[in-house]
Amino acid sequence: MSRKISDSTVRRLSRYLRILESWPDGDRDTVSSGQLAERAGTTAAQVRKDLSLFGSFGKRGTGYGTVDLTRHLREILGLERTWRLALVGAGRIGAALFEYGALRRRGFHIVAVFDQDPAKVGRAWGPLVVRDVGTLAGVLPGLSADMAVLAVPAPVAQELAELVVAGGIRGILNFAPVRLRLPEEVSVHNVNLVAELESLAFDLTHPDRLAGENGQPVRA
Amino acid sequence: MSRKISDSTVRRLSRYLRILESWPDGDRDTVSSGQLAERAGTTAAQVRKDLSLFGSFGKRGTGYGTVDLTRHLREILGLERTWRLALVGAGRIGAALFEYGALRRRGFHIVAVFDQDPAKVGRAWGPLVVRDVGTLAGVLPGLSADMAVLAVPAPVAQELAELVVAGGIRGILNFAPVRLRLPEEVSVHNVNLVAELESLAFDLTHPDRLAGENGQPVRA
Repeated sequence: MSRKISDSTVRRLSRYLRILESWPDGDRDTVSSGQLAERAGTTAAQVRKDLSLFGSFGKRGTGYGTVDLTRHLREILGLERTWRLALVGAGRIGAALFEYGALRRRGFHIVAVFDQDPAKVGRAWGPLVVRDVGTLAGVLPGLSADMAVLAVPAPVAQELAELVVAGGIRGILNFAPVRLRLPEEVSVHNVNLVAELESLAFDLTHPDRLAGENGQPVRA
Repeated sequence: MSRKISDSTVRRLSRYLRILESWPDGDRDTVSSGQLAERAGTTAAQVRKDLSLFGSFGKRGTGYGTVDLTRHLREILGLERTWRLALVGAGRIGAALFEYGALRRRGFHIVAVFDQDPAKVGRAWGPLVVRDVGTLAGVLPGLSADMAVLAVPAPVAQELAELVVAGGIRGILNFAPVRLRLPEEVSVHNVNLVAELESLAFDLTHPDRLAGENGQPVRA
């Protein structure tokens, strides 16, 4: 069953969790699929479908228990633990992530920083010291890192991704505007800022076609 | 027809363009759908389908002319012009974008920076001076800005997005982890770094379900 779960479903689950965690009515102990749907920008039927994928834990007519549902979602998403991240690339984007408090609050801890620039290697980044990317494959296993963030220029991304995988990493968040070719057991998520701006440019160039972020037309 | 075009199609078009622009065989004047597909991580049929949405400019058997196809894709994506961006939020993410050379090379020019922190307002950012967000709605029309990048904390994102829209902006790239509620004629693309890491955490927690970035299972 779990194979059927798409990335867009996972993104919605993540969104439901954020809504629950900042649920305004702290004294209310249930939430309906309709309330979740309204805040998540989807339909009540979609909410019920998404949540039913992981077993039925709502009650017809009374909705979901907010505490239970929050815990369930955290379990489903794998957030009932901390994740150890290796940051590859000590540039501007790397620095922005390193100082982004929300990461640590959500359980994502950057435990090492790597760069290939000799001028950056050896520098202190908070409690860490920037390491040479040449040591990646050797150092990663000892760090018990779970994921890597790849914030490096496009021409070196593939090579560094392979070193990361050689170091035992199976999850990569990639900021380089290239499609990484890696073994199928490695999960890669791409953040491509230029592509997002190009999508906006497309929308503004074709104003008759406005689509929501999940590709559904916002208007018919 | 153009209403049928989904965000994922636009992302693939953007990817084809990047592949063409770094096409390794500079002396070859045609490219086949199969060659594009291989580098884009999709199928030849998908490439042909995507490109046929905008008219037929390939020749059966000989493929697409690389120069023509590059120009067509740039036209389709709205990249045959420059786009003027207002950056709202002079924090770490804003700074990373501001110094990200690829933006300008792709025709996206940041023409103004806004922040609500009095300690930042008035500071020089390259040739620009950080402006007070209070002036957003008044200043934007005079800047001829086309898009805004919203790199601000979640609690103020909605309010600032409304000011941006009041200033005439119809395209927003939003880094705040909130779903903005804006008029339907405004196109919003969201970059949510925590949600991407949560998707990775989900993948690593459920290794039997590995999905590609477009939600298709990578293995059957």
